[in-house]
Amino acid sequence: MEDKNISQAVISRLPRYLRYLGELKDSNVERISSQELSELMKVTASQIRQDFNNFGGFGQQGYGYKVSYLYDEIAKILGINKTHHLIIVGAGNLGQALANYMNFERRGFHFKGIFDSNEALYGKKIRDMYVQPMNEMEAFVKENDIDIAVLTIPKTGAVKVAEQLVNCGVKAFWNFAHVDLNVPDDIVVENVHLSDSLMRLSYNITQSYEEKEDK
Amino acid sequence: MEDKNISQAVISRLPRYLRYLGELKDSNVERISSQELSELMKVTASQIRQDFNNFGGFGQQGYGYKVSYLYDEIAKILGINKTHHLIIVGAGNLGQALANYMNFERRGFHFKGIFDSNEALYGKKIRDMYVQPMNEMEAFVKENDIDIAVLTIPKTGAVKVAEQLVNCGVKAFWNFAHVDLNVPDDIVVENVHLSDSLMRLSYNITQSYEEKEDK
Repeated sequence: MEDKNISQAVISRLPRYLRYLGELKDSNVERISSQELSELMKVTASQIRQDFNNFGGFGQQGYGYKVSYLYDEIAKILGINKTHHLIIVGAGNLGQALANYMNFERRGFHFKGIFDSNEALYGKKIRDMYVQPMNEMEAFVKENDIDIAVLTIPKTGAVKVAEQLVNCGVKAFWNFAHVDLNVPDDIVVENVHLSDSLMRLSYNITQSYEEKEDK
Repeated sequence: MEDKNISQAVISRLPRYLRYLGELKDSNVERISSQELSELMKVTASQIRQDFNNFGGFGQQGYGYKVSYLYDEIAKILGINKTHHLIIVGAGNLGQALANYMNFERRGFHFKGIFDSNEALYGKKIRDMYVQPMNEMEAFVKENDIDIAVLTIPKTGAVKVAEQLVNCGVKAFWNFAHVDLNVPDDIVVENVHLSDSLMRLSYNITQSYEEKEDK
């Protein structure tokens, strides 16, 4: 594979390319030049060419990019043609929202179960899955080859639960708990710290107001 | 203010500093050296010093940082001592989850109302707020000095709703809709594209598996 050592900045931009290419595909657009893609996505054409060059190009001079080919290649790089087994730990509002809202399967993530320590939730059905007690989680993870856990539990329990899951074979976390997990280096962690995002928003508003006052 | 032209990378790290400093404060820790903070946060001490130097330092040689002072200064930079009025547009699972899950008020965001186009939700109470119809949104925004909108609606309607809100005076968006908004440059947009995050996770898992196979 050529896609070793690509910067996380480039990787971070790939899902957005995939989103636009998916929409073009859905609209039956077959080809697009880097100039057209640039105008659509509001990034420079040279940025697009540079990003795609990381993976060997995908384009032909004077022809532009073939949309469906480009889509498939980026999908492959992102690994969404692979199959993963996923559980959600934490069946509160956020866990339920993600279960219902995310189209996990479309990206190769098979939603297999949801767990919570709150007895009141046991037996509740969330997207065709009954909420299961936490003490059945370990056995379930081993039996069902679960490789990904979505953590939507409060930060107090998250570090310990993550360690427990790593011991059962979980390889990756989509972590919404507002804490940094303490897991070995070969375990993948993608943090979504919503509070941090809200604070970036707060900062940018403050800056934007001050700039206006300066004028 | 000294905090002009600070890179978004530094800004992005500030909420994490604030989180750790908040926990230290809660544990009654009064002072901390950059070395200790470095070990706790698993970033280099020189990174910490560099980041804080962007804002004039905060530290004294041989004394370390005073936790509560540092916390307050970073909070000020992030603007979370300011007051904002916020509505949530979209009362589905995600909108409800954010309403219930986020401690908006703690960060100066006052949650004022929630809107949806789904009649079945009208009158439903979410965190002490009744869901209101979309056609009452414009008047509400003007009457209540709303400056921030959280968008948790499907991507098909989001671009139009955002334009409508800008016309009523909304200055910033926390955008969960899976689409890029088309708003003037002076409007602040903080995107949370959960699907993009899930794809980064997918990519990093794929890479991590391939590295293991290579060994």
